[in-house]
Amino acid sequence: MQDTQNRNVFIDDADDRALAAQLFDALRAASFDGVGVTRESYTAKESLALDIVEAKAREYGLETARDGGANLVVTLPGTEPDLPFLACGSHLDSVPQGGNFDGAAGVVAGLAVLARLKRDRITPRRTIKLFGLRGEESSHFGKAYMGSLALFGKLTPEDLNVKDRDGRSLGDCMGSVGADVARIEKGEALLDARRVAAWVELHIEQGPVLVARELPVGIVTGIRGNVRHRTVECLGEAGHSGAVPRWLRHDAVFAVAELMTHLDRHWRTLLERGRDVVVTSGVFGTDPAEHAIARIPGKVSFSFEVRSQSRETLEGFYDLFRSECNLIAEERGVEFSFDRRLESAPATMDSDWVRRLRKSAQALGLPDEEIPSGAGHDAAVFANAGIPSAMIFVRNENGSHNPKEAMNLDDFVAGIAVMRAGIEEAVQ
Amino acid sequence: MQDTQNRNVFIDDADDRALAAQLFDALRAASFDGVGVTRESYTAKESLALDIVEAKAREYGLETARDGGANLVVTLPGTEPDLPFLACGSHLDSVPQGGNFDGAAGVVAGLAVLARLKRDRITPRRTIKLFGLRGEESSHFGKAYMGSLALFGKLTPEDLNVKDRDGRSLGDCMGSVGADVARIEKGEALLDARRVAAWVELHIEQGPVLVARELPVGIVTGIRGNVRHRTVECLGEAGHSGAVPRWLRHDAVFAVAELMTHLDRHWRTLLERGRDVVVTSGVFGTDPAEHAIARIPGKVSFSFEVRSQSRETLEGFYDLFRSECNLIAEERGVEFSFDRRLESAPATMDSDWVRRLRKSAQALGLPDEEIPSGAGHDAAVFANAGIPSAMIFVRNENGSHNPKEAMNLDDFVAGIAVMRAGIEEAVQ
Repeated sequence: MQDTQNRNVFIDDADDRALAAQLFDALRAASFDGVGVTRESYTAKESLALDIVEAKAREYGLETARDGGANLVVTLPGTEPDLPFLACGSHLDSVPQGGNFDGAAGVVAGLAVLARLKRDRITPRRTIKLFGLRGEESSHFGKAYMGSLALFGKLTPEDLNVKDRDGRSLGDCMGSVGADVARIEKGEALLDARRVAAWVELHIEQGPVLVARELPVGIVTGIRGNVRHRTVECLGEAGHSGAVPRWLRHDAVFAVAELMTHLDRHWRTLLERGRDVVVTSGVFGTDPAEHAIARIPGKVSFSFEVRSQSRETLEGFYDLFRSECNLIAEERGVEFSFDRRLESAPATMDSDWVRRLRKSAQALGLPDEEIPSGAGHDAAVFANAGIPSAMIFVRNENGSHNPKEAMNLDDFVAGIAVMRAGIEEAVQ
Repeated sequence: MQDTQNRNVFIDDADDRALAAQLFDALRAASFDGVGVTRESYTAKESLALDIVEAKAREYGLETARDGGANLVVTLPGTEPDLPFLACGSHLDSVPQGGNFDGAAGVVAGLAVLARLKRDRITPRRTIKLFGLRGEESSHFGKAYMGSLALFGKLTPEDLNVKDRDGRSLGDCMGSVGADVARIEKGEALLDARRVAAWVELHIEQGPVLVARELPVGIVTGIRGNVRHRTVECLGEAGHSGAVPRWLRHDAVFAVAELMTHLDRHWRTLLERGRDVVVTSGVFGTDPAEHAIARIPGKVSFSFEVRSQSRETLEGFYDLFRSECNLIAEERGVEFSFDRRLESAPATMDSDWVRRLRKSAQALGLPDEEIPSGAGHDAAVFANAGIPSAMIFVRNENGSHNPKEAMNLDDFVAGIAVMRAGIEEAVQ
């Protein structure tokens, strides 16, 4: 772990630090798998994590319950219970051999906020509820945000039939931990979005930006959506690598290399114009069934992904991509074929909340920089259900979904302080 | 098969045509495998092909023998047997499920030349020997030109120990068809290069140039050598495709795409300057053990091959390649690592012979265009043993090493006519 930098302010909060140390240790001990932690969606290990947080909440005298999705709900009732409540939290599941902070940090942070109010006997006007969500990671069922989607009646019967690697369906697994599968199956909302004043989620940053820019926390402006093709094929013509001259070649590798180089340049241009966009071709290759060193590659398959917080940028870049494919196909005598276009809508964080959290950070003497979220989060589901949503990112080294996640407790305490200040202002 | 074009002259040689039809039919019948023909190096099917040609040679009253490499040698003695002899021919083996013409066409053409002289009772001054070589294809032992290399003492004990897919060594297989493995093992030349005045080989073109340019035959100027890496690795840094912004990425796909695009441009520039060069990256891909659509590709492996008739061009392009790798590594924060550099020297065809064959073609009213050979041939082994060597390519559709090889007999007869005129001039 790196020391806090000179741009950072040391928030001296012994209680938050002690709570965090205890809970992270207990969660790690309960789910350590020899390499990292494993708390897969809708399994007993995930339930155990909920139990640990629930027990701690009860120690503080907070009310706890499980909702229709079998999520943990910790409540601090307000003086005006008819007002829409403020929701906070994150998820408690993890990928196999994952890190201890992805998800759990947001639940621990929410508990710290509620526990302080409870300890100080401060009753807010508005009720606050902390959610310890299940089923955020896609590693178990190939689908993400199951817990939050279920809350808003957005899991389809098809989703519920998806099987895990042992052949058990998502519906069965949800039922086995106590979820009301009959209601979920009917697409019934378990939570009325109109009753939720806001969703506030703290999460470790899964990218390297805060580390690189020496910022302990960042205020999230939006969650990038994406447009993808799992497989695009470029079909050229195979041939003897020595015997076919350039003018008779239809080389799929050179064709797709040129495509990628053009996309890379368009990407740079968009960034120079201030657009938010990242472009990736993560899976790329000639066909092992027919490729050879001395054979002109006749086929290349590749994946395509563009992510942006702006739907307009997504569509604009996708159009560029298709148009570059057409040009290269024409110039090089190759053909591109595309599988189904997949997309996920971007989500915008509530601008009042972004302002509020930036103000909280400033008041604490912390940097208040805005940052986009490249990874998806439950917050996107809340936002797209019409709930004003906000996220705070905490600096974290080595990415997430691996045991090397490294969040400094100093940074975490700073993140809690920003979240606390924002929530306390909103619930008065 | 396509009709002869208006640039082509129809050579009306019923004898050559009949001999070709008979021999190709007999060879195909003896080695048809249900899909194509299979006459693998140093197997009984290859021996059967030698037997078929030998029997036909004897019908014409020609002397036949097997040399120390178990190759078929058909001799037409000259009036001055002490003069270095003229050698012609090609190979009789094939790849599995291959075509009937790759190799065999050159042996049939040589027999047609010898048979005509014999029939017409023309005794040349210089002895002519037709070689029906074995072991040219690399498909059986992973090594090519075994038959011709053995002739010049260039098979190493290591080569002879290479195993085929049934675990039999090359040495054992050569011995089983009658080769003198003891001499070959010692690196003893089975043929004294100083006794060979020239090597003349007719072969189907394995590329599409003669078809595209509507030429029935071409006079080969040289055989391209190559410089290769089987595997170059570009190491970048994997990461979340949404969460890592451009300035913190080290994307191996974009890096190698840029490399390929630069190489493609350098290639075009060299061609514009009249250099002979082809460039191929036939095997290319991200790592299936770790790649994913939502993961920045941290590793790309690719093969590199440049071919040219000129050693200077090969080395020049290779230097460009390494220098581009360095530049891209520096710019993009990636690293390139290279396996062993492999090379095969280019071979130049004898310029007097190129002139002679072009003159022969002109005299027959045929086009006399020069063409490089992109694929390797036994002729390169003869040339690199110091023997003036020459090749005639015959137009052929659909490449070679597959059952769809399609050589028109009209073109073949034209090729024989060019070869015959060149040889008859040289042996007088």
